[in-house]
Amino acid sequence: MKTLNYSHTLLPYIPFFYVIWSDDLLSASEIEVVKKTVSEDDGLTATDRKILLSWLDKKHPPKNEEIKHWQQLISKSGVTLIESETYPLEAFSQKVAAFYSHTEVKNSNLRNIEINLGIQPNHYSYLFHVDVVHQVSATTYDAKEIDSIFNHAHRGEIENIRTFLQDPIFEWGVHRPKEQARKRVLEQLKALANEGWGALAYPKAYGGKGSLEAYAVIFEYLMFVDGSLAIKFGVQFGLFGGSVQSLGTQKHHDAYLKQTGEAQLLGCFAMTETGHGSNVRGIKTTATYVHQDRHLVIHTPGKNDNKEYIGNAMDSKMASVFAQLIVNGKNQGVHAVLVPLRDEKHQTLPGIRVEDNGYKLGLNGVDNGKIWFNQVQVPVANLLDKYGSIDANGHYQSAIKNPNKRFFTMLGTLVGGRICVAKGALAGAKMALTIAIKHALKRRQFNDSIKIQEDLLMDYPSHQLRLIPKVATSYVYHTVLQRAMEVYANGQTDKRKIETQVAGLKAVITWFATDTIQECREACGGKGYLLENRIADLKNDTDIFTTFEGDNTVLLQLAAKGVLSDFKSELNSDGFVGVLKLLSSRLTDKLATINPAYSNKVDKDHLYNPKFHLHAMDFRLRRLTDSAAMRIRGYIKKGIPSYQAFLKVQTHLLQVGRAYSDVLAVKWYYDFVAQQPNEPYQKLLRQMGALHSLSIIREHATWYLEEGYLGSTKSKAIRQRVERLSTELRPHINTLVDGYGIPEKLLTAPIAS
Amino acid sequence: MKTLNYSHTLLPYIPFFYVIWSDDLLSASEIEVVKKTVSEDDGLTATDRKILLSWLDKKHPPKNEEIKHWQQLISKSGVTLIESETYPLEAFSQKVAAFYSHTEVKNSNLRNIEINLGIQPNHYSYLFHVDVVHQVSATTYDAKEIDSIFNHAHRGEIENIRTFLQDPIFEWGVHRPKEQARKRVLEQLKALANEGWGALAYPKAYGGKGSLEAYAVIFEYLMFVDGSLAIKFGVQFGLFGGSVQSLGTQKHHDAYLKQTGEAQLLGCFAMTETGHGSNVRGIKTTATYVHQDRHLVIHTPGKNDNKEYIGNAMDSKMASVFAQLIVNGKNQGVHAVLVPLRDEKHQTLPGIRVEDNGYKLGLNGVDNGKIWFNQVQVPVANLLDKYGSIDANGHYQSAIKNPNKRFFTMLGTLVGGRICVAKGALAGAKMALTIAIKHALKRRQFNDSIKIQEDLLMDYPSHQLRLIPKVATSYVYHTVLQRAMEVYANGQTDKRKIETQVAGLKAVITWFATDTIQECREACGGKGYLLENRIADLKNDTDIFTTFEGDNTVLLQLAAKGVLSDFKSELNSDGFVGVLKLLSSRLTDKLATINPAYSNKVDKDHLYNPKFHLHAMDFRLRRLTDSAAMRIRGYIKKGIPSYQAFLKVQTHLLQVGRAYSDVLAVKWYYDFVAQQPNEPYQKLLRQMGALHSLSIIREHATWYLEEGYLGSTKSKAIRQRVERLSTELRPHINTLVDGYGIPEKLLTAPIAS
Repeated sequence: MKTLNYSHTLLPYIPFFYVIWSDDLLSASEIEVVKKTVSEDDGLTATDRKILLSWLDKKHPPKNEEIKHWQQLISKSGVTLIESETYPLEAFSQKVAAFYSHTEVKNSNLRNIEINLGIQPNHYSYLFHVDVVHQVSATTYDAKEIDSIFNHAHRGEIENIRTFLQDPIFEWGVHRPKEQARKRVLEQLKALANEGWGALAYPKAYGGKGSLEAYAVIFEYLMFVDGSLAIKFGVQFGLFGGSVQSLGTQKHHDAYLKQTGEAQLLGCFAMTETGHGSNVRGIKTTATYVHQDRHLVIHTPGKNDNKEYIGNAMDSKMASVFAQLIVNGKNQGVHAVLVPLRDEKHQTLPGIRVEDNGYKLGLNGVDNGKIWFNQVQVPVANLLDKYGSIDANGHYQSAIKNPNKRFFTMLGTLVGGRICVAKGALAGAKMALTIAIKHALKRRQFNDSIKIQEDLLMDYPSHQLRLIPKVATSYVYHTVLQRAMEVYANGQTDKRKIETQVAGLKAVITWFATDTIQECREACGGKGYLLENRIADLKNDTDIFTTFEGDNTVLLQLAAKGVLSDFKSELNSDGFVGVLKLLSSRLTDKLATINPAYSNKVDKDHLYNPKFHLHAMDFRLRRLTDSAAMRIRGYIKKGIPSYQAFLKVQTHLLQVGRAYSDVLAVKWYYDFVAQQPNEPYQKLLRQMGALHSLSIIREHATWYLEEGYLGSTKSKAIRQRVERLSTELRPHINTLVDGYGIPEKLLTAPIAS
Repeated sequence: MKTLNYSHTLLPYIPFFYVIWSDDLLSASEIEVVKKTVSEDDGLTATDRKILLSWLDKKHPPKNEEIKHWQQLISKSGVTLIESETYPLEAFSQKVAAFYSHTEVKNSNLRNIEINLGIQPNHYSYLFHVDVVHQVSATTYDAKEIDSIFNHAHRGEIENIRTFLQDPIFEWGVHRPKEQARKRVLEQLKALANEGWGALAYPKAYGGKGSLEAYAVIFEYLMFVDGSLAIKFGVQFGLFGGSVQSLGTQKHHDAYLKQTGEAQLLGCFAMTETGHGSNVRGIKTTATYVHQDRHLVIHTPGKNDNKEYIGNAMDSKMASVFAQLIVNGKNQGVHAVLVPLRDEKHQTLPGIRVEDNGYKLGLNGVDNGKIWFNQVQVPVANLLDKYGSIDANGHYQSAIKNPNKRFFTMLGTLVGGRICVAKGALAGAKMALTIAIKHALKRRQFNDSIKIQEDLLMDYPSHQLRLIPKVATSYVYHTVLQRAMEVYANGQTDKRKIETQVAGLKAVITWFATDTIQECREACGGKGYLLENRIADLKNDTDIFTTFEGDNTVLLQLAAKGVLSDFKSELNSDGFVGVLKLLSSRLTDKLATINPAYSNKVDKDHLYNPKFHLHAMDFRLRRLTDSAAMRIRGYIKKGIPSYQAFLKVQTHLLQVGRAYSDVLAVKWYYDFVAQQPNEPYQKLLRQMGALHSLSIIREHATWYLEEGYLGSTKSKAIRQRVERLSTELRPHINTLVDGYGIPEKLLTAPIAS
């Protein structure tokens, strides 16, 4: 093999140049890195340097024959590539150079290129016809460190719950008949309550720690046990207990909160009706006040007015019933009333009828039921009266005069539940990703005809692209939900604002979970279809998360209306018109036209820059909001009623809601990254941020191209960068899924072990 | 109310102009329609005509104040809009005009506009503040006629199976323990076999009708009963029986085919192994020929080499086992051998081990299992020897000399199965769409504050957009699968070509089903989550369709490789290189640059024109194929091994496979439409074709914009047209889902009744 007379100092550069030119992603900044290294390498002769620099001219790239010669030179050296070396390409190159020059070659300049270009063995090992000592996973990062970065707050609770859930009572198993599954979940619920986990969010006086945040943090771990357990837990302690805590006053707390936290009193949250799910304000159940002996009559008036899908309905002794409160013949709007359902022998009380909702797609360990009330009397003291009460004279009293505002204040208690639902969905996605990725790191299929061993699934580009961006997104959403709960629990912001934020995030994150778990199921092929591998249950259990605690389509419109009314105006449609006038003039000024140089800027530094990501997200939100407002105004000016005008732009509003959630997630994530002191990990976090952001931009590339924000070249470059970043994160992917901190004992899927 | 002095002849035009201008979709051809009507209306004065024509100038549209005045004029007339009138807007307009002019107004010119612009009550009824007598569904089309258009071939069998499935044995129910579900499905299978349904595809001599097409046609209906029944049926009669029929010779037919068709002999198709699913050629089970007493030894060599997910494994007496055939120490490649599994008492035979695969996400009525063979001896006669046999001297013989070609010929028998899987998936999607749409035509939620009744879900634009395009696509795919089966069954084309076609179609259609059923579940909210409403089972049962009978990702690559090799070259990677050289020169010539006038042509006539749809699809396929070929060539020229070069463009190849399937579907669909003699129905079919095609183009709009095929304006116009077409089909949507012809008795979902 002749080496085209390359000198022994130039020779170690050959594998580097081969790797660089076999790909098409060399950006200006990357060329600079190589140029600098070559210029500063004192071992090179002037001729060598000239040759090397000539190979960096993108306009006159090395000829294919030359590149092919490099490939043969490398392959025929017989040198083995060892991926576990600290600088594998440097070490490999030196050995190749030594082979041809018959002298030891040392050149530590090379690692500059290797480090700064982020060249990893999985980028190039397949380019050479050489033996490779493979590594399934790099050791650059430590999963424990990632876990501690992302799960820093309430660390004590996290470690305790991780340990506690190793109790055999939480072991996974198949329980097909619903009665069996429900029995098991109820036992698990009680075990948690006994250890004080149920009461976490309640005040200390009632056995809790007064920490809604800690409650939300541990909620995630219950999903790893069983979706039904998480939901049963959420209904009992979060929804039922939460309604007593947030809508009730001290008399209710004293009477019920401790028992509820201990699961001595089981309760349900009876809001949804067969005829009214999304439109809570339209529910038909009535609570009519009778002054004579100061009681309330709870009644189901019509055929479809019964409560439905009420979790914990079969086990509960009491329900927090949402009903239209009628006082002196006047409807004061929706209020919650505590209604006993069953006696000590668990017989339903007079006037109460409960029916099992039967089998569902998933969550069959949760006892959902329908409830009818036939003129059921309860004392007026059972009215959860924090925001509205009936005084001794039988007059309705409320500190919030506006009935609309009162309604939304009461519904505000659902915000915590929405965050938990999103957390639960995300936990499901994390678990499915862990299983699919661990499987792909073991499973091999197909090979080059030369090799004996087949290729790992994880080394297929299509497999990387389907799973790795989702891991990045899962980390983004993890930090975002933590912040949302922090903001909500500590009342750090205007209530309406956090409601808008959570409405959007809940929709986007639960949809992300549905997509991700589906992708994981398919990525595991037939194995993913077996119940024992857990993805099936995660898929079925989380499926309803896009519907309950607010249907996603409705929530995105809620978020959009929040954006349109600039978080200030009231949410009824009439209130909008005034705001819109203001809005459309205000926004248009701020929208700069996009410079063509910007819309075609494809440099890596630019594409990976958080500023670009935030700018792109923000541009989308502003432009969409502006155009929605303009369209609505246009219709209204032509005499179309405002309700109908909003309906005409409904699909547009969904896009506004989504854009809003995208901005929020990326912004909060980068805030989080900026706070991390550990530089190497900060780099990893930035890579994930870039992958997430570019994936989102890519998803909406049609819109960006239509608006001229992206030019063709940039749009294509973003696609290539998404693929490249996925490949760059490939060596760390096992560490990243371990970083979720899912207790090994709960990860029972045989394909993941 | 003053009427701005509009004459009584001009007055009836007002509602028309209000409807036209309250929307933004007026195209040049539509303006022509109105102009023509106005010009030909002899009742108008010259002044009227001038005013009306001035209102058609898109550059100087009527002022908002004027439009608003029209709206008030209409609303204050107090006239009720009756949707069931033949020409509701004409009738309404005349009444409004009569109210203000105090004289009877008749103007039958108006209906020209109403008909030619396709203006329907659901476009405009909400624009006026008037009382509306609503229609849930229009009566323009007849569901029976649609059914007969789409289900014309094998009509006798269709009607018979629809009737037969009303037998109580096919009634839907919840069977949670798998043993119960399997027992039920086995009984149903036998009931079908008793009536001759199982043998349909076999020759008459064995109890059949020799019609694979009829078999495929009725397969769809089994999905409406239960996914497990369809799969069990497919395994027994299609895969096991099919392998005997297609890979065996007369001795096998005589011995087994009749019994198989009658379900007297239950059999399974043992191809997939734990370690080898997609890579069938790499399976490890061996069938070693021993010449001494002419037998074959079937053996499972290693840990992951057992058969897995084998449907019918627990019930079968015999298996069609795929194994590497070793004759005289030489591996002759994969062949199928009939291996008895159990004796008459259903005890497994010596050397055979079968294990239940346990619970799965869905299809729990199918008994999937794992099978191990420990040196199991069978006579050499059990080799299914149509394509390869062992002669009396112990020499291997095959008419197909090339082992590669032989392998693909044997696998070709899977093509029929793939068509059936796609048909099954599509049937699942149809059933879910029917349920979701019937629910949306009853379910109401939210309203304008003025109205008492809430709005129908089906009248929300977002709901129309999520469901209606999928109905259009379902009809497109229905015709396409019928043609694929016709081509395959009658050997109308080169075998390799139909394999490529079916590979792509199976992937695209099963993914469509997964997306559609998910969308339907969410569109039904909590109701969609209940098992009784059927969507849950459809979702879980069809989920694996994207994986089995060929993983979709693998199949799309297979399709892409078929495209690249122009259906002629062999499918091993070495064979490609030569073809690629040819390909890249050939294709580039044919790709014309896109004229800017074309890339911004937004006229309705153009956007709805099948020629545009086909051109767009074809352009995408050609350009993607060309660029994939160029990239692969580029890598190979740089010395990258061809296997790795293909891997580098893997995600690109998936796009080629998808583009190929899109072209095929649209082309075949329009061929079908062209054959329909009934003009009004042809129009409906063309509307569905346009909606399907524009949805596909919209889905890939990023790519079209990047390539300059679409300009921004056209891209946006396509989005608007997708929304508009959905609204246009809204009145016919109930008729369209009824047109699927799903037997009412099988449509047991309470929300659909």
